[in-house]
Amino acid sequence: MPSLLKRISFRVAGTNNERTFTLSSVSDDGHFISLRPLIKPAGEKEVEFPFEWAFAGTNKDVDVTKVDETNVRQVFRMAFDSNVYLKVPNASSDPVDTNWKTWDSGVLQESGTIFPFGDDRAVEFEEIWQPIDIESGKLILTDSAAANGRSIVLKVTNSNKYGIIIVTGKWIQGLLGDLDDSSIKGLNFIRFVQNSDGSHQKLINYGSNVDQFPTKFDSLEKGETIDVNGVSWEVLEYHV
Amino acid sequence: MPSLLKRISFRVAGTNNERTFTLSSVSDDGHFISLRPLIKPAGEKEVEFPFEWAFAGTNKDVDVTKVDETNVRQVFRMAFDSNVYLKVPNASSDPVDTNWKTWDSGVLQESGTIFPFGDDRAVEFEEIWQPIDIESGKLILTDSAAANGRSIVLKVTNSNKYGIIIVTGKWIQGLLGDLDDSSIKGLNFIRFVQNSDGSHQKLINYGSNVDQFPTKFDSLEKGETIDVNGVSWEVLEYHV
Repeated sequence: MPSLLKRISFRVAGTNNERTFTLSSVSDDGHFISLRPLIKPAGEKEVEFPFEWAFAGTNKDVDVTKVDETNVRQVFRMAFDSNVYLKVPNASSDPVDTNWKTWDSGVLQESGTIFPFGDDRAVEFEEIWQPIDIESGKLILTDSAAANGRSIVLKVTNSNKYGIIIVTGKWIQGLLGDLDDSSIKGLNFIRFVQNSDGSHQKLINYGSNVDQFPTKFDSLEKGETIDVNGVSWEVLEYHV
Repeated sequence: MPSLLKRISFRVAGTNNERTFTLSSVSDDGHFISLRPLIKPAGEKEVEFPFEWAFAGTNKDVDVTKVDETNVRQVFRMAFDSNVYLKVPNASSDPVDTNWKTWDSGVLQESGTIFPFGDDRAVEFEEIWQPIDIESGKLILTDSAAANGRSIVLKVTNSNKYGIIIVTGKWIQGLLGDLDDSSIKGLNFIRFVQNSDGSHQKLINYGSNVDQFPTKFDSLEKGETIDVNGVSWEVLEYHV
């Protein structure tokens, strides 16, 4: 069942805050994308690249294990990670081992430990996630991450690019990176929400190649490949 | 400006969780009520009284001081506190000194220290609050606690009762306690949300005297007193 999670808070090294408008999309088959734009970029560097982080992967990039009725272990290997792509200092491509606890309210508490400064310096983090109703274009809270609604995933097949787009209900998030580059010029992100007339409200439309994202998701078939301005997208998942 | 805040998480003594569906209403003039029903009461005691806590007060019961652009200090003296009323062990009627920090996302981080076990045993707590759009009957996230919309407050004048009801937009929360009692039999709580046809969806309707809450808020006047099944309610605030 597809889900859309809004991050409410991010605690790291003892400090709790939320500087981003982060949404994570997870498809029915377990493919994922998380876009984390800064709400109020501060300073030249953040204005130039107003994202805390962005990453994505397919269900082959995450190991999900049920621990008990309320806890799930998820070990992520990011297939695409903006920090690694941009060679941010201390960016790590190690797997991220996380525990997801579902509270009575339906809110999800993700906790884990990362080692950006080496194996002997663990940094604990906690992220709190509020499930959002994917069938509304407004940010309506729900008490369950699982929902019905369309779940569509396309992935780029060109060898010099990494790209994925995930549609969950009315919400669309996509990431496209040029693998011949490693600067912000090679990055593209979109976050669209479908209006009632079928048009898209563009909440994020970042990068010089945003016209290479697919924007029509009717009558596709799993396995087919479509061309969008020179980029080939394969339909990995198509549940409508 | 009236506001409605949904608690997302409650961290106390190092443990973060959310077992309740807590909404706090704050009126335009600063009167307040917080109802904290348990979502999944566990065990006989919780089933008998399925609330973590409930409290309310007027703007005379809270001192609000602006600290800086993003921080506000609020010192609460609860005019009515279910824990004190029920003589819960370690319940304290001391003022609660809190700091409210507004994050870039609009989410509010409340933090403070309480002393339920005496002055030498401080217990730190943190509550994270998501502002909700008061003009919708659905739980729609907003990025600002301040909102337009009606703000109406009535307070009981009978000397043997404490009662307050706060209307913020479509959301109504009320508390009524019999001061001649100190058991759960003396407590009444309501949380209604107005449907588009003007009727009320009763999300909480707890206690044997819920028929003593006012349910019509049209054409009242500040200062007037209305009778509801033998209880006198004075209109403290009336902004429509």
